Amino acid sequence: MNVKVRGRSRHYRTVSFDARRNEVLLIEQRLLPHEFKIVRIKDYRATAAAITDMIVRGAGAIGATAAYGFAQGLRDFKGSGLKQFARHADRVFDRLANARPTAVDPVNAMLGLWTRMESGATIVEKQAIALAGAEDFADEDVAHCEAIGRHGQKLIRSGMRVLTHCNAGWLAFVDVGTATAPMYAAHAKGKKFHVYCDETRPRAQGATLTAWELAQQGISHEVIADNAAGHLMQRGEINLVIVGSDRTLGRTGEVTNKIGTYTKAVLAQRHKIPFYVAIPESTIDWDLKSGRDIPIEDRHEDEVLGAWGINRKGRREYVRIANPSSGARNPGFDVTPPDLITGIITPVGIFKPRELWRHRRDLGWSK
Amino acid sequence: MNVKVRGRSRHYRTVSFDARRNEVLLIEQRLLPHEFKIVRIKDYRATAAAITDMIVRGAGAIGATAAYGFAQGLRDFKGSGLKQFARHADRVFDRLANARPTAVDPVNAMLGLWTRMESGATIVEKQAIALAGAEDFADEDVAHCEAIGRHGQKLIRSGMRVLTHCNAGWLAFVDVGTATAPMYAAHAKGKKFHVYCDETRPRAQGATLTAWELAQQGISHEVIADNAAGHLMQRGEINLVIVGSDRTLGRTGEVTNKIGTYTKAVLAQRHKIPFYVAIPESTIDWDLKSGRDIPIEDRHEDEVLGAWGINRKGRREYVRIANPSSGARNPGFDVTPPDLITGIITPVGIFKPRELWRHRRDLGWSK
Repeated sequence: MNVKVRGRSRHYRTVSFDARRNEVLLIEQRLLPHEFKIVRIKDYRATAAAITDMIVRGAGAIGATAAYGFAQGLRDFKGSGLKQFARHADRVFDRLANARPTAVDPVNAMLGLWTRMESGATIVEKQAIALAGAEDFADEDVAHCEAIGRHGQKLIRSGMRVLTHCNAGWLAFVDVGTATAPMYAAHAKGKKFHVYCDETRPRAQGATLTAWELAQQGISHEVIADNAAGHLMQRGEINLVIVGSDRTLGRTGEVTNKIGTYTKAVLAQRHKIPFYVAIPESTIDWDLKSGRDIPIEDRHEDEVLGAWGINRKGRREYVRIANPSSGARNPGFDVTPPDLITGIITPVGIFKPRELWRHRRDLGWSK
Repeated sequence: MNVKVRGRSRHYRTVSFDARRNEVLLIEQRLLPHEFKIVRIKDYRATAAAITDMIVRGAGAIGATAAYGFAQGLRDFKGSGLKQFARHADRVFDRLANARPTAVDPVNAMLGLWTRMESGATIVEKQAIALAGAEDFADEDVAHCEAIGRHGQKLIRSGMRVLTHCNAGWLAFVDVGTATAPMYAAHAKGKKFHVYCDETRPRAQGATLTAWELAQQGISHEVIADNAAGHLMQRGEINLVIVGSDRTLGRTGEVTNKIGTYTKAVLAQRHKIPFYVAIPESTIDWDLKSGRDIPIEDRHEDEVLGAWGINRKGRREYVRIANPSSGARNPGFDVTPPDLITGIITPVGIFKPRELWRHRRDLGWSK
């Protein structure tokens, strides 16, 4: 998407690749929203470290970063012979796969490249195929998000006020994003609407990343405390909710997303406000049979007991908010049942949550 | 309640009076939870400033502070003659009444003293009556909170997990508090339970004041993000909700309280969890006919866009969390309808919200 840098607007992807210099280019997300910077990563080990250190985060974005990192590593091969090359490829794969051991996207992205590389006869051919595969992976990620935008923008009419939670924006993907895709597409069509960004404590991705994204695109928006949406719905000031999802169960339509999503869905139902979830196919889990089986990560209590921000001197700092002798409970995600969800916006269309299974072949299920 | 200061536990009221030195004593609430300090206020003008500057806040606490400040001002009278004394009393009254112009408690507390003073024949008598009246006002505030505790503690059983929102604790009153009163009474009876304190963004009174209060009394508790309660209810980990109220409509049973209260009530109903509101008589509004008529204050956006806390050097600091070019919407309160409220815990018993009007004479209605 476009970013204003020193007064000029330019297009950036979250992840891209400089083939001439064999460098991965990433938006340094840890500095956002206070500073916009592109970092150039010079080798695959550093690319793996960038994933580990969360310079880049978000399912699609780390998938593409691993794919590019894999191609980058193969293109740096200094030895000779296919056998030695294969051993090198193993090392590169393992390093990148272990950068975020619980994430599934990097592994899936690299396995795709691995399969395609088998058609190459020489090292040079395999290197070229890996690079082309990484570019295809990134382009497909963008195409999926754009398709979500095309379907989802029909839900947004001028004058609407739209609520979103956390960040399922272009920073979490290669470009465009999921929950934000309908907003960007509607904005491009000239529709005028207003977005409320839930702050999304404890990590405040709504106040930081989503608000920054919308500001870059010139979309009218305001940050609200997570406590405020209920009141605004009660007063008729929210017309539509669109969120993303970390994992959606293809068999039941249950949606796992950032903590607080379930609460917004309960409120939306009470106020008869449409509640949509925007997802790419890659986040659908076709195996799990119940939301109760989804493990909910308990994160570090310091996230709840304090906050990161910029102090008066312009330096990034953590402040302790809570009583010093108190602890915190910090579940990272929650599960929203299908009866609270009006529709799931996918790249191939909008479905009722319980209809996903019926459309599983269109949605990339392959068993 | 008791506070541990340098290892020793001592009883403090939020507001008290040193008659010998004619000083108002206040817990300096702006330093909590990071520092506990009692400030001595030497004259009525400084007492008014302490209310304005929020050294003390909360309905009952500022009522008692104004009552003591009124007596303090009258006892400082340096002139002679009842006429001159009456003019002085007017000045003291106005100064204290204007310390928080929208608050009703300081004015009501001082009007009570004014009426009682009419029975005094001399300046000395009137001064003595004002002081006795202020002490009675404070004692009555405590007695009401203790009565709320006696009724409310029956709702708490050992093993329960109780959710509360914001701070309706002893720091908001002269002592004991309202939402916390049942917890303190149950704890005193030896019941073992756990309290989840909603952080209560944007001002975080749950993470700061309520968590500090519970820690002082040794009650098991954890802070949670405002986003987390829905998930915990869904997993069966919350058994009871008790909150306070800034204004409850005696005719309809609608409850105005800190932003986010309504959301918790909606969630509690979905999960069939009892939701109680603890209030003293003084916060019941017998006039308003609909919650739609309650003005909801929009507060400064900086509260949402950042947070106050203690930095690594131990200094209190504000950090900007949100995207620098984004604004915020910050409604301070919301209104919970009676159908979401299991009961209202008052000093004279627990009632259904719609039963308040029938019990209006017991609840101090006098028209």
